[in-house]
Amino acid sequence: MRAVVVLAAGKGTRMRSDRPKVLHELLGLPLLAYPLEAASAVGVTQRVVVVGHGREKIRERFGGSALGDGKSSGGLVWAVQDPQLGTGHAAHCGVEALVESLKIGSSKSKLDDLQVLVLNGDLPLLRVETLTALVERHESSGAAATLLTCEKENPRGYGRIVRAAGGAFETIVEEPDADAATREIREVNVGTYVFRASAFREFFPRTKAENRQGEYYLPDVAVVAARAGLRVETFSVEDETETAQVNSRSELARAGEILRARILDDLMASGVTIDDPRTTYIESGVRIGRDSRILPFTVIQRGVEIGENCEVGPFAHLRAGTKLEAHASIGNFVEIKKSVIGPGSKVRHLSYVGDGIVGRDVNIGAGTIFANYDGVRKSTTQVQDGAFIGSGTVLVAPVTIGKGARTGAGSVVLRNRDVPDGETVAGVPAKRIEKVAQQT
Amino acid sequence: MRAVVVLAAGKGTRMRSDRPKVLHELLGLPLLAYPLEAASAVGVTQRVVVVGHGREKIRERFGGSALGDGKSSGGLVWAVQDPQLGTGHAAHCGVEALVESLKIGSSKSKLDDLQVLVLNGDLPLLRVETLTALVERHESSGAAATLLTCEKENPRGYGRIVRAAGGAFETIVEEPDADAATREIREVNVGTYVFRASAFREFFPRTKAENRQGEYYLPDVAVVAARAGLRVETFSVEDETETAQVNSRSELARAGEILRARILDDLMASGVTIDDPRTTYIESGVRIGRDSRILPFTVIQRGVEIGENCEVGPFAHLRAGTKLEAHASIGNFVEIKKSVIGPGSKVRHLSYVGDGIVGRDVNIGAGTIFANYDGVRKSTTQVQDGAFIGSGTVLVAPVTIGKGARTGAGSVVLRNRDVPDGETVAGVPAKRIEKVAQQT
Amino acid sequence: MRAVVVLAAGKGTRMRSDRPKVLHELLGLPLLAYPLEAASAVGVTQRVVVVGHGREKIRERFGGSALGDGKSSGGLVWAVQDPQLGTGHAAHCGVEALVESLKIGSSKSKLDDLQVLVLNGDLPLLRVETLTALVERHESSGAAATLLTCEKENPRGYGRIVRAAGGAFETIVEEPDADAATREIREVNVGTYVFRASAFREFFPRTKAENRQGEYYLPDVAVVAARAGLRVETFSVEDETETAQVNSRSELARAGEILRARILDDLMASGVTIDDPRTTYIESGVRIGRDSRILPFTVIQRGVEIGENCEVGPFAHLRAGTKLEAHASIGNFVEIKKSVIGPGSKVRHLSYVGDGIVGRDVNIGAGTIFANYDGVRKSTTQVQDGAFIGSGTVLVAPVTIGKGARTGAGSVVLRNRDVPDGETVAGVPAKRIEKVAQQT
Repeated sequence: MRAVVVLAAGKGTRMRSDRPKVLHELLGLPLLAYPLEAASAVGVTQRVVVVGHGREKIRERFGGSALGDGKSSGGLVWAVQDPQLGTGHAAHCGVEALVESLKIGSSKSKLDDLQVLVLNGDLPLLRVETLTALVERHESSGAAATLLTCEKENPRGYGRIVRAAGGAFETIVEEPDADAATREIREVNVGTYVFRASAFREFFPRTKAENRQGEYYLPDVAVVAARAGLRVETFSVEDETETAQVNSRSELARAGEILRARILDDLMASGVTIDDPRTTYIESGVRIGRDSRILPFTVIQRGVEIGENCEVGPFAHLRAGTKLEAHASIGNFVEIKKSVIGPGSKVRHLSYVGDGIVGRDVNIGAGTIFANYDGVRKSTTQVQDGAFIGSGTVLVAPVTIGKGARTGAGSVVLRNRDVPDGETVAGVPAKRIEKVAQQT
Repeated sequence: MRAVVVLAAGKGTRMRSDRPKVLHELLGLPLLAYPLEAASAVGVTQRVVVVGHGREKIRERFGGSALGDGKSSGGLVWAVQDPQLGTGHAAHCGVEALVESLKIGSSKSKLDDLQVLVLNGDLPLLRVETLTALVERHESSGAAATLLTCEKENPRGYGRIVRAAGGAFETIVEEPDADAATREIREVNVGTYVFRASAFREFFPRTKAENRQGEYYLPDVAVVAARAGLRVETFSVEDETETAQVNSRSELARAGEILRARILDDLMASGVTIDDPRTTYIESGVRIGRDSRILPFTVIQRGVEIGENCEVGPFAHLRAGTKLEAHASIGNFVEIKKSVIGPGSKVRHLSYVGDGIVGRDVNIGAGTIFANYDGVRKSTTQVQDGAFIGSGTVLVAPVTIGKGARTGAGSVVLRNRDVPDGETVAGVPAKRIEKVAQQT
Repeated sequence: MRAVVVLAAGKGTRMRSDRPKVLHELLGLPLLAYPLEAASAVGVTQRVVVVGHGREKIRERFGGSALGDGKSSGGLVWAVQDPQLGTGHAAHCGVEALVESLKIGSSKSKLDDLQVLVLNGDLPLLRVETLTALVERHESSGAAATLLTCEKENPRGYGRIVRAAGGAFETIVEEPDADAATREIREVNVGTYVFRASAFREFFPRTKAENRQGEYYLPDVAVVAARAGLRVETFSVEDETETAQVNSRSELARAGEILRARILDDLMASGVTIDDPRTTYIESGVRIGRDSRILPFTVIQRGVEIGENCEVGPFAHLRAGTKLEAHASIGNFVEIKKSVIGPGSKVRHLSYVGDGIVGRDVNIGAGTIFANYDGVRKSTTQVQDGAFIGSGTVLVAPVTIGKGARTGAGSVVLRNRDVPDGETVAGVPAKRIEKVAQQT
């Protein structure tokens, strides 16, 4: 059985923020969501989050309304670390909460069978493939603990992995304790582990807080286990960027850059044209069909779906809940929010489409506004197949523009004044007009 | 006499596209246009394109309506490679179509005089200067074949140029056949050649398809000629970026980056201020006058002309057919399409100017729309010297705003309701108003 | 006593401009402003600018209306270098003008006490910290002259610093005069100096214009002083980017990149989230409160103030004179110019707010235009606390929308037609409407 303990108790002083570090957002998701989602993808069945600073804000963000007894919410088990006595102690709090939540504290065989992935809340770039390989190395080797390591270009500040003659893991030497030769070692401890639960519980109590900070260090658990003769394994991640840690807003920005480059590379490999990756901002969880083209200066938020052969941009902003069907075309200075744009339809210039359902082969003229908000609630606007919305039209939701209907330039279509199929309206407020006066 | 054979028969599997690779666009032009335009600039008098996959789409895109007999169109000779038996075979198809189109098959002297530049359809970054130097080296040396080579930072995957003791070209060794020492060679075969037509026809039949793919390789023609004692020359391109090949959408994006950096460097060297080159997207074929300034987040398409002392951006989009005269000023969230903006005129905020003819010293207010499209056809709007268009005006084309005329804020000027010189109109639809009610 | 002489007489041929080089703008300020501001921050009490080419344009830009007698204006002393006989001669012109302006020409003790910082007009990236350290080194060492040096990655083109066995400054060897060994020296003369005024006046006359250009070189003054046995000190700047010189528009763009990266790093370190630094353009002199977030594709001009917990962008343009109060939210395709946006107020979509005073908790609907310009003058629009501006509204300044008032979608509120507190208006032109017809 696999579980995860995510360490999220730190304050994140260098963020200089009123929010705890793990609530800062990376491409639309809080940092803490990354290890939680990755762990789920690796197949853990129980997720524990160790919180301390800002714990109420974190629970609120992740627990939703189901916060309940303060112990388990949103599918998560919450462990509070208070006081904070180091990373080893944090993991200990998490493992104890895990064992308690599973009600297996007395069973040696169940503890032997429980493998605990320990992840940092501020390492959002580790790939699922990497974590899967780490856990599989751990399980297949039968190790007491398995560490994720990385050959760093510049290992400064990290604990170095010291190996015995045969190559087996021997110990970890922290930077301040390292002699010159040890500092030359470029393989470092990333701070990501898998522990056999029984081994963690046996060896954590043997670690000591005998250091300047007076803290219990998590790597010491592995070191003590190795010294006791148990097998400690390692798995090395090749792509150093996966190990980027977020301690400051600069590092947060840098993590975003790395993640977005991955997303764009994947999209291009799948058959999407990105004219200028450097000025294209696409969050993860966006689906784009083959032979669609994304022009420069475009923002596409998490969850947006784009069909095949669409064109988006330049200067387009597709927000959450947007779906473009095949051959749809979104032009410049256009924002689409929580709307469907039907096949072949066009919104090319200076428009805001919010809470819209736009049919097939619709033309939305320049400067059109879907006025979806009346100050209290948001409502939906429908524009049906083949309709033609004249330039500078305001559609006040809720309202429906029928099939093949038209609005004149500068029209304001009031709420609930639906325009029947095939009719043309114009004016402020818009009224049905005779053909002769048509003013699209 | 100089001719070119462009190899464009490949499928481009890694593009993952329904379109053939050479039709993918780089800065507004299909990839195939690059070698064709470069060859013309080098002075070729006959251009042959070897097509295979997607040949109909390619011919349609390049042949226009003059497709005719399917052999020659758009000034191009089309050679079909079917089946596809390698790059040597592709060039052979092209050379035979060339010889046939010139009706010189029987003339040894004419074949001796015909120099055939062979270009890849997916090498869009080779400079005209480089190709000119290559052809001149070939012609001045009297070589049977001349190869373009490049010292690559990382030569992996390329055929290495092996030279005799004196430095003369000896052979090309492909990566899989290279021993360790040969792999150290960093001078590689770029895949760009000039052949004397008579030599190509003599030596191509001596190449063999004795390799894993069972294909005839184009470099073998040069190698066989060299072995037979003929002179084979090389010309080395210094700037490695010129040899970037486009096999995937990532490589397409990378080629665009290189090309745009060249364009911006040229513009800056000529006296144009580019505030932030990284966020300025200018296609080739754009002319910008001295002391004009381009602000960040700006897209300028191929063919746009900008006079001296203009200002454009930030967040501006100048589309094809646009001309800005001296001291014109285009501001933020403004799209100009196929329009002339006269000297000193301003379009500063949130406007769409399409199919417009704007005179001198005109002020186009914020949120102005030129409604140029009625769902069927596009029409022209004229705004004459010194006119003042109030904020939020919609001008429905075709319409003319006279000299010094004004529109009130939020006006909708209907089509054909021209506003005489010096008059003010306002309202929806706009009507002439008395001075007292003026509402610009 | 500290003074500065800024050398700004050069033409800047490589800029290819009708303007003198030092008037080209870097992030909204002319190049010349950078050394002048840095010198003031270092505590100089008299500032001299040596001008030549384009001197009238420079004086006009910096002297304002107070140009007066053509000698001193805008707090600056103007020295004209005509003819131009080299950098040494330029500094000489500046020092003489300085001495004259201070009326100390006859006083040896005052000249001994006067330390003259000599700065290039085209070195805008030197940090105040660096210049302060340079001046302090000079003053504490009692040197006749102190040079700023830098270890360059690539020293080509620069004068090399040659040191005696003990490490003391010996001489400067220009590139053309350097032998192979000297060219290997990577410590170069940056072109920034402090001179004791008495020493400058003693040794400048001993320099000779015996070189190809027939010019007096400024470094020769230090070299001659050293040869005469006086102490010449150096201070080395660590960050090579500080020494970037602006000779062309490409170098101007590069300087902007460096400066903006510094600005963003500082903002992030202070607690501001920048989603994508590469596509965020913020000038210097912008204040942003903690936990505010700047989204991609955003331009923020010099002098803008943003409170805590604000959100800006994507695609936002905040121009000079803008102030956002805490929790204000500016969305996409929005331009704010010289306006205050009150606490919690929102301008989210496609709007232009110019010369506006917007209260607390105001909602400005999509497509709203503050029509602040009537072709002659600009006027102010007030939108008071809790007001709700419907989509597509045009507010013609001067006008006031009262507390809690509303405008219907597509309204045009004419100038001076103030909307009383709590009322709703709609239509073109906007009139008070009954509740039943409300059309926000």
